[in-house]
Amino acid sequence: MDHNVVGKSVRRLDAVAKVTGRAQYTDDFHERDMLVGKVLRSPHAHALVKRMDTSRAKALPGVVAVITPDDLPKIKFATAGHPWSLDPGHRDVEDRLILADKARFVGDAVAAVVAEDALTAEKALKLIEVEWEVLPHVLTAEDAMKEGAPLIHESRPGNVVSSFGVQFGDIEAELRGADHVIEGDYETSIVQHCHIESMSAFAYVDTDGRVVVNSSTQIPHIVRRIVAQSLGLPWGRVKVVKPYIGGGFGNKQDVCVEPLAAAMSLAAHGRPVRYCLTREEVFIDTRTRHAMKLHLKTAVTRDGELRGIHVQVLSNTGAYASHGHSIAMSAGGKFRPLYDFKAIKYEPRTVYTNLPVAGAMRGYGTPQIFFALESHLDDIARKLGMDPVALRLKNLIQVGHQDPLTRNVVRSFGIPECIRKGMEAIRWEEKRKALGRQDGPVRKGLGMALFAYASGTHPVALELAGARIVMNQDGSVTLQVGATEIGQGSDTVFAQITAEVLGLPVDMVHVVTTQDTDVAPWDSGAYASRQTFVTGIAVRKAALEVRAKVLQVAARRTGLNPDEMDLRDRKVVETSLGREVCALEDVAMDAFYDRILAAPITSDTSANVRINAMSYGATFVEVDVDTETGKVEVAEIWNVHDSGTIINPRLAEGQVHGGVSMALGYALLEQMLFDPQTGKPLNNNLLDYKLPTLLDTPKINAAFVETYDAAGSFGAKSLGECPVISPAPAVRNAVLDATGVAFHRIPLYPQAVFEKFREVGLTAQRSVEHV
Amino acid sequence: MDHNVVGKSVRRLDAVAKVTGRAQYTDDFHERDMLVGKVLRSPHAHALVKRMDTSRAKALPGVVAVITPDDLPKIKFATAGHPWSLDPGHRDVEDRLILADKARFVGDAVAAVVAEDALTAEKALKLIEVEWEVLPHVLTAEDAMKEGAPLIHESRPGNVVSSFGVQFGDIEAELRGADHVIEGDYETSIVQHCHIESMSAFAYVDTDGRVVVNSSTQIPHIVRRIVAQSLGLPWGRVKVVKPYIGGGFGNKQDVCVEPLAAAMSLAAHGRPVRYCLTREEVFIDTRTRHAMKLHLKTAVTRDGELRGIHVQVLSNTGAYASHGHSIAMSAGGKFRPLYDFKAIKYEPRTVYTNLPVAGAMRGYGTPQIFFALESHLDDIARKLGMDPVALRLKNLIQVGHQDPLTRNVVRSFGIPECIRKGMEAIRWEEKRKALGRQDGPVRKGLGMALFAYASGTHPVALELAGARIVMNQDGSVTLQVGATEIGQGSDTVFAQITAEVLGLPVDMVHVVTTQDTDVAPWDSGAYASRQTFVTGIAVRKAALEVRAKVLQVAARRTGLNPDEMDLRDRKVVETSLGREVCALEDVAMDAFYDRILAAPITSDTSANVRINAMSYGATFVEVDVDTETGKVEVAEIWNVHDSGTIINPRLAEGQVHGGVSMALGYALLEQMLFDPQTGKPLNNNLLDYKLPTLLDTPKINAAFVETYDAAGSFGAKSLGECPVISPAPAVRNAVLDATGVAFHRIPLYPQAVFEKFREVGLTAQRSVEHV
Repeated sequence: MDHNVVGKSVRRLDAVAKVTGRAQYTDDFHERDMLVGKVLRSPHAHALVKRMDTSRAKALPGVVAVITPDDLPKIKFATAGHPWSLDPGHRDVEDRLILADKARFVGDAVAAVVAEDALTAEKALKLIEVEWEVLPHVLTAEDAMKEGAPLIHESRPGNVVSSFGVQFGDIEAELRGADHVIEGDYETSIVQHCHIESMSAFAYVDTDGRVVVNSSTQIPHIVRRIVAQSLGLPWGRVKVVKPYIGGGFGNKQDVCVEPLAAAMSLAAHGRPVRYCLTREEVFIDTRTRHAMKLHLKTAVTRDGELRGIHVQVLSNTGAYASHGHSIAMSAGGKFRPLYDFKAIKYEPRTVYTNLPVAGAMRGYGTPQIFFALESHLDDIARKLGMDPVALRLKNLIQVGHQDPLTRNVVRSFGIPECIRKGMEAIRWEEKRKALGRQDGPVRKGLGMALFAYASGTHPVALELAGARIVMNQDGSVTLQVGATEIGQGSDTVFAQITAEVLGLPVDMVHVVTTQDTDVAPWDSGAYASRQTFVTGIAVRKAALEVRAKVLQVAARRTGLNPDEMDLRDRKVVETSLGREVCALEDVAMDAFYDRILAAPITSDTSANVRINAMSYGATFVEVDVDTETGKVEVAEIWNVHDSGTIINPRLAEGQVHGGVSMALGYALLEQMLFDPQTGKPLNNNLLDYKLPTLLDTPKINAAFVETYDAAGSFGAKSLGECPVISPAPAVRNAVLDATGVAFHRIPLYPQAVFEKFREVGLTAQRSVEHV
Repeated sequence: MDHNVVGKSVRRLDAVAKVTGRAQYTDDFHERDMLVGKVLRSPHAHALVKRMDTSRAKALPGVVAVITPDDLPKIKFATAGHPWSLDPGHRDVEDRLILADKARFVGDAVAAVVAEDALTAEKALKLIEVEWEVLPHVLTAEDAMKEGAPLIHESRPGNVVSSFGVQFGDIEAELRGADHVIEGDYETSIVQHCHIESMSAFAYVDTDGRVVVNSSTQIPHIVRRIVAQSLGLPWGRVKVVKPYIGGGFGNKQDVCVEPLAAAMSLAAHGRPVRYCLTREEVFIDTRTRHAMKLHLKTAVTRDGELRGIHVQVLSNTGAYASHGHSIAMSAGGKFRPLYDFKAIKYEPRTVYTNLPVAGAMRGYGTPQIFFALESHLDDIARKLGMDPVALRLKNLIQVGHQDPLTRNVVRSFGIPECIRKGMEAIRWEEKRKALGRQDGPVRKGLGMALFAYASGTHPVALELAGARIVMNQDGSVTLQVGATEIGQGSDTVFAQITAEVLGLPVDMVHVVTTQDTDVAPWDSGAYASRQTFVTGIAVRKAALEVRAKVLQVAARRTGLNPDEMDLRDRKVVETSLGREVCALEDVAMDAFYDRILAAPITSDTSANVRINAMSYGATFVEVDVDTETGKVEVAEIWNVHDSGTIINPRLAEGQVHGGVSMALGYALLEQMLFDPQTGKPLNNNLLDYKLPTLLDTPKINAAFVETYDAAGSFGAKSLGECPVISPAPAVRNAVLDATGVAFHRIPLYPQAVFEKFREVGLTAQRSVEHV
């Protein structure tokens, strides 16, 4: 395909705003007479408030309001950032109040203070007297499911949010008839998003009596709905504004602070109140990535044909459901369209515990499932004496594959080419040969892993996106979307799609980057790597509508049939001759100022996208493992992606850099730790929580295999979350390759690695034979 | 007609915002690092800058930029707030630069300073050294047209902006054949709008490289175009935002401060710069109402049939054209569809002088022409010995009248009823009888006058309006218009129209009151009393589109034919049975969340309104004239309006109160004075300029004759400017009635009245016989 703007590394639209510091984030806005809200958090993992005395807090000068659960509507609501469903059985679990009537984890918010300044608010919190009845608590899914375990939510006996699973084929038959049945246990840790910008909102009641919430969110239209639900307001009486966002990674696909911010303002008679979490609060009272324990049991033939797999998952969702079981189900759906299993049985359980709440985080279950699956495949290969790449190549699905459960069809499948490209890039064969027999303290190893991901949530959830384009008098256009730029570069991609359709340079597409739910078209927001794919379809549709209107006006001017004209380089051209018919500006001016026919050219449209496209990719990695210290160093890493057409290579590369860096933290360093006795967080700050810094991050290499997927705009598929999925198992497999030691839990941080080496008797002196 | 919301005095949408002080005006917004811009003004009425030395000003610490004409593009532009015309012959006169290269009036801006604060900017202005070559100047139209008069603009020899006129019928034949030819001279003064909020703007260059201007304007989309034109930018690279506005009255239908504000920001490397005029600057460097001299010559039969009229107008437009000749032409157009003249010859001349620039002001030429015409009719009645009401009634046009020049058809004509209602209200007959013979110092008199006005500018200019409606999930809607709420209540009227069509209470229509040209539909803005009529048609069209979509979804739900359903009280009903089919909210929820058919209900539309509707009305007034002091007191005043259907009676009454108050200032007190030798303003401040305060204002009575005009939304016609037109001649006629003295010039301030009485020999002792 020959494109003018699509496929080019145009500069991101917000580049200047961000590097000059002029981009305004939620905390950069100030309302007159703004108050500060702070929250009283439970020191206990599980406890009842027997009595709460707020009188001393209320009496403190500068305190405007003290809010307890009794002051708020008793409406249970769900916080997950999903579009509403008309089907009650398809909605998220409604298990929380704005302030908890019972603390379910250390940090659960049980009261709030609104004051003239932060210091006064903090002081007032200390003056609230609480008499607690401490309850027994559980921190692991296993403990939570035990007979007699304390009940965290009355509505869920056994603390299981859901154990709904899926299957197809005859897994029992496959396991019975297999040459080998290979089992493995894999485990991931709780990690946090660590977006640079905190979770923050401010709210006020406007002079129309509506509740206005400005928020650092990925999902303004959903925030609007959930704030209204939580307060029992008509949805139209809430307005949400999303300014520039400093990262979200799924954490801001949840409605964590906005209902309370709104409640704080209502308690303060509508005055503006800012509720901004400290970093310590972000760690414990926003969302985390679910820790999962996965048991995989695979039927395989002696020559490596994967016949069937039985996956059991235990997912620890913490004290409230949030996205809960959706994440385990997402994991179960996204790994299927990759290997041609004849039977799959997927048995997940999502379980409440007295820990901070797990929710959406980049990858949405796939970093867990692919860590397990891709580690497991290397374990199988090793058992069969097969090359791990050969095992995978043997079992891949093919283009045209239709998922037996979702009925999604794979229209593009670049995995074979991703593997070829990745092997070539890292010089796989050459290095494998060179590794040979290794002695000495530092061992080198090569690893790889594959992944599959979707583009949006169809058919699980509604995929509705809106776009509005208005043509200006100079032929430039203004584009509005409800989809949110949160740093990933979506505004730039939408501008490119629009420019491509309309024959414009990209700087003639002006994108409104702030979403205000009053004027921004409806869109569910930034998640599920959906925007380039789903919103891209809406943007392209709007641009095509504008194009059709332009050609109609041009036809009026020229007498030519609209079908015989095209838009190129700010001109209307007669397609067959390539001849300029008129400038686009002339058409725009006619549309605005023709005395008889004036009608500005606009499109305000939406697309309900009922199709999905699977994205794919592979990580290839070389590691150096220090057997004496347990330190794993990534010497070289390649992520090769099939995300269909790459609309903007530089932005795509940036996504891969960020995602791989995040994945290496997941693989090697990060985990949230809790005191097993009390459930108290041990490292909820950026000093103790080991997020990789730039100095910890190796050079990250990105490569792309550009397939064309007919479902997407210009053939594009998802990319945003993809890079985060396969590095962890690839690293783990490289460590296996380097040391012969199969790790089953991440992160592979030095202490854990060192202890495991001790356990299996690996020392610097024991050599490893490469297979 | 039976309406639910239309015709009701619903509370204005901005009531709470305004009475609580929370409404934010241009000066309430603050940008980080905002600078202040100030202007160096000419002390001479006509002078060339021979040399300007800005070096000392530039060297002053805190000065960021000093701008002279040489620093700016040499692009002449027009400032009048009219939609652009594709016909070059139909555009406003392009006669000015952002900063003048030659001063044409005292106060003309010849240089500007941008500084860190206002004090520094003022100091810097004093450090600019200018060597002037003072030129001879002219202050009156007559002087300006004299042989050898100084040439104000090189492109206009003789200083005449235009002398284009119109005529129909054979005026010479009518004058020749008339029983009487009666002539009269009438003169009006220069007055100023005196909106509470100053003329103010701030501008910056955004990180997209676009020029953003926040401005207190009636015409944001036109400001966008003119700022771009003045700076030679593509129009799409300018964005204009209009927040709450504290009054405009036509002054803000001109682009006075925005190009310079933008230029100031560009000179300061894109930093935000505020340019806010002082009251003294508003008086001299925004716009005024044209002073006109009118000579009327009327052919009339002995029994009072008005056969033909020859009107000659001399209109003093000051130093730049601005709206210039449009205003004289508007005067010539709007008085025609009232009396059934067989021939009219209208000869206006608009002339440059070395005075502040005249432009649009409430009434747009009609306060001048109707002062002349309605005074003239009383003079004729007196000459013929006729009752002035009888003379008017005898000559009225009738419904169906078509203007021979505009081809506009009069579809509703409430004047006879307005006269009946006004006479009854003021007890005309009873009081006339009671007046009898008056002696003593204070004389009572009754006067009346009629007027006609249009609803918008069709067919003179384009009448294009846009509206966008989005239905929220609760069935409420958000309405966006490009039309501007400037205090007149238009947002409330649009909400009522929308609510009426959609069967909603008005508080379920959320109107976006801020116009941001990026997202607000295109509309030319608030002028020509056009918005209820023109934009109302667009709003109703958008609401009807939304209604049709709602009924389609309801049809899908119910199987009923959309034509058989209606929207009432937040419900879809089966029209014939009055039976509720479903809640509107159910339809909205389907539109957002139906998994197959989801498509949010929106309308983004425009209307090119190619029809006009004449509004009418009458003033009836009783005055007390103190023959010893010259003081004229209004004892009772009624304005009776035919503005078609009144959408909101309370707001309509408010318009009449404001307009009549303004008209009484025009009639009795206000005039801008200039030193005849130097052209320097003598009273450009609110102490010396005699604007009536509340204490100067009598009780004002408003009444309405509700005709139904098929051209408008729900039968509505214009009202905004109407109340300002007829009070001045009515007062003048009442003074004539009281004293027998015919005044030919306003204002009738005590000194002028006193001197005229001296001149004609009227004393407290000389009695007056009422006719």
